[in-house]
Amino acid sequence: MKKIGVAIVGFGTVGAGVAEILTKNHDLLVARTGLDISLAKIADLDITTDRGVKVDPAILCTDAFAAISDPSVDIVVELIGGIGIARKVILAAIDAGKAVVTANKKLLAECGAEIFGRAADKGVDIYFGASVGGGIPIIRVLREGLVGNAVRRINGILNGTCNYILTRMEEEGLPFDDVLADAQRLGYAEANPSLDIDGFDTAHKALILAALSYGVQIPLDSILVEGIRGLDGRDVRYAGELGFKIKLLATIAREDDGIKVFVAPTLVPKTNMLASVSGVFNAALVSCDMADDTLYYGRGAGRFPTASTVVGDIADIAMNLAAGEVRHRNVIPKTGEASALVPASEMRNAFYARLSVIDKPGSLGKFATILGNHGVSIAAAMQKQGDDKPGAVPVVVITGKAREAGVKEALAEILAAGVVAEPPVAYRILKD
Amino acid sequence: MKKIGVAIVGFGTVGAGVAEILTKNHDLLVARTGLDISLAKIADLDITTDRGVKVDPAILCTDAFAAISDPSVDIVVELIGGIGIARKVILAAIDAGKAVVTANKKLLAECGAEIFGRAADKGVDIYFGASVGGGIPIIRVLREGLVGNAVRRINGILNGTCNYILTRMEEEGLPFDDVLADAQRLGYAEANPSLDIDGFDTAHKALILAALSYGVQIPLDSILVEGIRGLDGRDVRYAGELGFKIKLLATIAREDDGIKVFVAPTLVPKTNMLASVSGVFNAALVSCDMADDTLYYGRGAGRFPTASTVVGDIADIAMNLAAGEVRHRNVIPKTGEASALVPASEMRNAFYARLSVIDKPGSLGKFATILGNHGVSIAAAMQKQGDDKPGAVPVVVITGKAREAGVKEALAEILAAGVVAEPPVAYRILKD
Repeated sequence: MKKIGVAIVGFGTVGAGVAEILTKNHDLLVARTGLDISLAKIADLDITTDRGVKVDPAILCTDAFAAISDPSVDIVVELIGGIGIARKVILAAIDAGKAVVTANKKLLAECGAEIFGRAADKGVDIYFGASVGGGIPIIRVLREGLVGNAVRRINGILNGTCNYILTRMEEEGLPFDDVLADAQRLGYAEANPSLDIDGFDTAHKALILAALSYGVQIPLDSILVEGIRGLDGRDVRYAGELGFKIKLLATIAREDDGIKVFVAPTLVPKTNMLASVSGVFNAALVSCDMADDTLYYGRGAGRFPTASTVVGDIADIAMNLAAGEVRHRNVIPKTGEASALVPASEMRNAFYARLSVIDKPGSLGKFATILGNHGVSIAAAMQKQGDDKPGAVPVVVITGKAREAGVKEALAEILAAGVVAEPPVAYRILKD
Repeated sequence: MKKIGVAIVGFGTVGAGVAEILTKNHDLLVARTGLDISLAKIADLDITTDRGVKVDPAILCTDAFAAISDPSVDIVVELIGGIGIARKVILAAIDAGKAVVTANKKLLAECGAEIFGRAADKGVDIYFGASVGGGIPIIRVLREGLVGNAVRRINGILNGTCNYILTRMEEEGLPFDDVLADAQRLGYAEANPSLDIDGFDTAHKALILAALSYGVQIPLDSILVEGIRGLDGRDVRYAGELGFKIKLLATIAREDDGIKVFVAPTLVPKTNMLASVSGVFNAALVSCDMADDTLYYGRGAGRFPTASTVVGDIADIAMNLAAGEVRHRNVIPKTGEASALVPASEMRNAFYARLSVIDKPGSLGKFATILGNHGVSIAAAMQKQGDDKPGAVPVVVITGKAREAGVKEALAEILAAGVVAEPPVAYRILKD
């Protein structure tokens, strides 16, 4: 039986998971692939801390580059994360003619062109299934199962920390800060939670999905990224009363006017499958020209779910190597072609807006007029019960499809006009 | 660019869909696979009826076997359905050394051993992604994405006709017969709906999933198959009041006592993602040792969703052929090993039972005693409002985990004991 050697570079949470799966389910992998896929090297600066998985001490080493060039290694699994050393490891592996598996969304979103270009030049496989959605095979499905489809739209809940916070805010009526603190205590959120709650982790994943779907490499700073930091419990409650849940959604879509990619808290109709995704789970709803709507749901992070997807990639590459083949298909393009991206300010969505309207004659007319002046039509307006500042009443407005810039300008003007007691907020609505 | 020729055998709904995708999205497939995948032949007894797709008349033929042996054909797509001629077509294709794609669940469930055995002997690929779940890539995910996982359990809503009927019964409170008649009028159910509503279509799919998950080929007649025919609207209502939806579920699971495969109307907690699957949509919830819970949702039938999955298989095989490789992995095993199957009578589940109890002293005590005598514990019993026969009141019982045979024997004895006004019914409950 052909032996395929795997080097894990970065022996952290996911690395230990990969080591455990390759060990514990080795026979299963043999039965299913016909190959002896085995750990050849594990490289980490720290090779003494117990990771809760039993590995042969002889394969542990501290020199990643020595591990990469070891002749027993066929596949290099980069699980360091970040850009600096991870990028060097991957490029060194490619240069050594070794196939690469990575789960590094930040690196792919920011340096994808360089890495995929180098891999194509050198003729080696690079797989990155676990970079989006952890244990959910969304990358595989887009590359393979839906290969005959043009992607119309993807809406994804791609960050478990945010979805956990939003679920608890909704189910328990708790304020954002309390749930965040609790999530940090429980280990669901980092001490510095910015990457998650400010939307950048989701944005990295959105850019990878956009690249796979539309062959464009879009710079992070050209897309709208809004996180959930400071989300007001009133909006969660009012959205619920209107039949919506607020989710941090990545939206990747191609419409008549171009490609849209953005990340923002979004009102999802409760009848949409995405509204049923609770807690740390992730999901992506993919709408295609042929398969129509499909949805993929699972754990978006965690040791074994992420490692499961990494091992799926390892098995694929192992079979490619056994066949003497590179199956380097539909990767992120070498040269970015993002000209089709619709600028954030020009995107059109229906909005939910909440205004704390000062209760005096003419207030309602005034803000309605300002919205109209900016091309924002009002589909519905409702006065809500609430504990706004004295003399102010909460009014929720559902707009027709409106330009992003129009809504922002109108809300700024409404604030300046002195008809509201606090800054208005606005969130996009997912059409069902 | 390497040219890969495809023959479609059976130019029906799905066949026409495959022809359209290969034509309309040809350039997309070239960009993604680097191969020129093109229609070489279309064989059907009827080559004159308009299928709503434009194809070169020169590739139409009535002789499937001539199409198969044509040197321009590399991949044979069998879309005839059924066993007789479909089996001959597939075996002829294999014997001619051509790779095969099929969506024929009945054939695979009943003749899988013969077909996969022959394909392995001849060294050709056979892919069958569209045999379960239409546009949902559940087969691909089990074979590839979850390759490093042991499957603990799959619960699937795998028949759109049944889910459509159940959804309308639940949402509109309509009786089974009315919705079935309406579904037939709308084309969602066949004139002879037995294959769907009696559970056999779902059972075929369950057997394929069991084969992929556990490497066992189980005969159809050895598993419990209950359909939704005649489901009483009262049960849909009472289940709803208790926090459940009734779904026709395929269950494939490995537990300590062995492998369980069955198809039956099942109470699904509303908090479970499967409960949110409405109308003709299908979904499979897969629980694995490493990835934990993942769910796959989409259209389980229809021209383009099914054809989308067929084209995914074609693209895979085309890449295998271009690499001079057969990637015939993790197929349904040649020799069945179903000894680990737990007999239907010995399976243990919690049950919902509805008894129309004759309202006289001692009735409740009597049926409770009978249940106890058969080892069926009562977790909850509730008298419901209902329009049972005069002198009878509906009582709903939730049991603890109980032997299938124990429940059936107890209900038969309760009926014989004259404490109920109509035959009791019982449905299994999916633990969340």
